[in-house]
Amino acid sequence: MAISKRAVRVRNVLIGGDEPCICAPVVGADAGQVLEETRQISAKKPHLIEWRADFFQAIHDEQQVAATAREMRAIAGDIPILFTVRSELEGGRPISLTEEEKLRLFETVCQSGAIDLLDYELAHEPYVPAVRQLTRCYGVRLVLSYHNFDCTPSKEELVAKMRQAEQHGADIAKVAVMPTSRQDVLALLQATEEARQGLEIPLITMSMGGLGAITRLVGGLFGSAVTFAVGQQSSAPGQIPIEEVRDVLSVIMKYSQ
Amino acid sequence: MAISKRAVRVRNVLIGGDEPCICAPVVGADAGQVLEETRQISAKKPHLIEWRADFFQAIHDEQQVAATAREMRAIAGDIPILFTVRSELEGGRPISLTEEEKLRLFETVCQSGAIDLLDYELAHEPYVPAVRQLTRCYGVRLVLSYHNFDCTPSKEELVAKMRQAEQHGADIAKVAVMPTSRQDVLALLQATEEARQGLEIPLITMSMGGLGAITRLVGGLFGSAVTFAVGQQSSAPGQIPIEEVRDVLSVIMKYSQ
Repeated sequence: MAISKRAVRVRNVLIGGDEPCICAPVVGADAGQVLEETRQISAKKPHLIEWRADFFQAIHDEQQVAATAREMRAIAGDIPILFTVRSELEGGRPISLTEEEKLRLFETVCQSGAIDLLDYELAHEPYVPAVRQLTRCYGVRLVLSYHNFDCTPSKEELVAKMRQAEQHGADIAKVAVMPTSRQDVLALLQATEEARQGLEIPLITMSMGGLGAITRLVGGLFGSAVTFAVGQQSSAPGQIPIEEVRDVLSVIMKYSQ
Repeated sequence: MAISKRAVRVRNVLIGGDEPCICAPVVGADAGQVLEETRQISAKKPHLIEWRADFFQAIHDEQQVAATAREMRAIAGDIPILFTVRSELEGGRPISLTEEEKLRLFETVCQSGAIDLLDYELAHEPYVPAVRQLTRCYGVRLVLSYHNFDCTPSKEELVAKMRQAEQHGADIAKVAVMPTSRQDVLALLQATEEARQGLEIPLITMSMGGLGAITRLVGGLFGSAVTFAVGQQSSAPGQIPIEEVRDVLSVIMKYSQ
């Protein structure tokens, strides 16, 4: 389905290969919750686990974050972990870290060897080269992302965001936008299809909310390499439980070319 | 999902209401096969059954066709029956009936009281008024259809076909086209969404083959009121078994707005 020229292999998972990957978010507020969620989610065998660390109350304590990441790693076995500190502006929880503080946190967490991928927002463009350098240094794959919780920009702008991610050296480009109409939902799929043809890196795209929920099921056909599904708790509007996503994907993959 | 201003109620089935309908085709070559298929399909409780009478070897024998339709009716209980003689040019079996002969057949079958809906192709435009008149006379709903097994015309042309159907007094407009790219698949969905906004009658649309198979699952979100699924045997490329279509639709309807 979503075959990218530069598919990314992380542990035993191929992102951007024939089969779309399922990623389940962990949104616990403390280490106990994070590890319990990781345990329950791992049992459901998603391809990837995302730690949405902006939900973690001790996000200011680098050492605690790294220690928790290492414990997650032990629980998750060979499931790759994506580390994300979503900014409030792009749908995350309110936290007061500056971008410089985030960079230090990223370095500590990358150093821990516990995470495989890191998400960073294109919106903080001046810091992107530093994030790219440090992730590369520790062998961590970089997802450069763009979120819009208000609307869906034009197809051209969505493609430009993904191209921008590739130009900044991202291993994977991500776009998550809010639709206000069915046309917006189709525009997101069209942008994905166009970007797949024009770019080499794997893409992760979705149209959020109930209106866009369908893109979490069919996006793989148009070039989205990963779909976010609920393991224990949802991290964004429109996510569908992992079991149901898996069932639907198996039908889609069986009958689609 | 697909809410049309002029939703069509046939027996207990609402076509163009909140929920997309599943229609299973019967393609038997003789009365025995047709009735056995009808039996097996009825047990799977589709919303509609389509008799693709162009597969029926005795298609020239009006009385045998009508008698078989009456027997189908007895087996199908309250499941509405759509009667279709697809022309070879639009994907049907080679039969030698002229349009005038088809009209006589339609009248005999409509008179039998066994069928609820009749499909006729827009391509035979000069005959459409006569078909509209006779179906109306017998209380049979008319589906005016356009098929293209070679390609997917532009979005504008697809919308124009559906508008043409409405202008000719169709109760339902149908468009089935072959994609040669993922863009074609999205164009079909866009045309459906546009036509839903501009027209009042329910629409049935699909992109055929493996490339378009996804439209048989998600079309309802964009305004397609009916999806054709395999009960016993497929009647067109890309059709998915009824059980799997039903499972996927239940997930889509649960999470989509």
